[in-house]
Amino acid sequence: MMSPNPIEQLIKRLSRLPGLGPRSARRAALHLINYRDGQMVPLAEDMLAVAHAIRRCTECGNLDMTSRCGICQDNARDQKRLCIVEDVADLWAMERAAVFSGRYHVLGGVLSAIDGVGPDTLRLDYLVERTKTEQIEEVILALSATVDGQATAHYIADKMTGINARITRLAHGVPVGGELDYLDDGTLAQAMKARQQF
Amino acid sequence: MMSPNPIEQLIKRLSRLPGLGPRSARRAALHLINYRDGQMVPLAEDMLAVAHAIRRCTECGNLDMTSRCGICQDNARDQKRLCIVEDVADLWAMERAAVFSGRYHVLGGVLSAIDGVGPDTLRLDYLVERTKTEQIEEVILALSATVDGQATAHYIADKMTGINARITRLAHGVPVGGELDYLDDGTLAQAMKARQQF
Repeated sequence: MMSPNPIEQLIKRLSRLPGLGPRSARRAALHLINYRDGQMVPLAEDMLAVAHAIRRCTECGNLDMTSRCGICQDNARDQKRLCIVEDVADLWAMERAAVFSGRYHVLGGVLSAIDGVGPDTLRLDYLVERTKTEQIEEVILALSATVDGQATAHYIADKMTGINARITRLAHGVPVGGELDYLDDGTLAQAMKARQQF
Repeated sequence: MMSPNPIEQLIKRLSRLPGLGPRSARRAALHLINYRDGQMVPLAEDMLAVAHAIRRCTECGNLDMTSRCGICQDNARDQKRLCIVEDVADLWAMERAAVFSGRYHVLGGVLSAIDGVGPDTLRLDYLVERTKTEQIEEVILALSATVDGQATAHYIADKMTGINARITRLAHGVPVGGELDYLDDGTLAQAMKARQQF
């Protein structure tokens, strides 16, 4: 047996993926070995292709194969609306929901004193500058409804005072399909406050 | 945006792994992209290395980098005890538990009329032949306690009648740490029948 055993090394590396523990990593490794030519080799090649080609968009921070991402390049999108999201996963979630046709700004995190993430790390000055030069008409703060997310939203809104753009945020309320009984008090209070004409 | 987008293709391929759905595949892909040099490239290289080097042991059916696996090559192991397991995952489970120091025979499945797996698919004749030529003294049937697993065990035991080897099976009973209240009747009945002196 070679040392370190390549199979064990593969399992160890797979187990570092989020959502996979040692047990599911073993299952995944066996699955890959069983479908060697159909799945294992293509997956490895995809990974290498993405690893070599992936770029962070210089404009919005999205991930794509080009240094200016597909969304920024797409002139059919609304150039006057800017949606601020925490990370690329959130951008993908917005795109999947297909509820926004403008452009994005990926912060790359939220302000967090504990993690040492300050306004400079998130390059908020650049964001403000961008909002001005691109003559954005609406800035949508699509940040998580967590303490850090909301603190960041407030900080950005403060920074943008005086800019000629409407600043909005996603609505809080009862999730679609959600039962009142299971909702936390904070959400219920927000949903009550923002109640709408039926 | 290129078509098909390599990131989306990577996510799609990741989502085919057991234990990963579309959502966790996206998380895994982003994780890999974020740790491109530390995890993504090494993982892809490990996969290719395993894909190119992996062999099925000609003797026992285990997976290893050599055509005769490390366990079969290890002369320190008990050559007279043969443990029959369904697949490599079960072999790994036995090895992790470190409760068996003999050699294995990996069936590659269990008899199953529905799935069209018969005695020929599992090469049971070869197993019987092997038991004879290697003068095995004990054959341990370490098959799952499912209907198919137990049917296979009985079939193998039948086939081995007349061979000069003790045929044993793993004990059934209360799992260590298990609560009686949650046990099914079958297990409880087996545990009662096989009760031991305290």
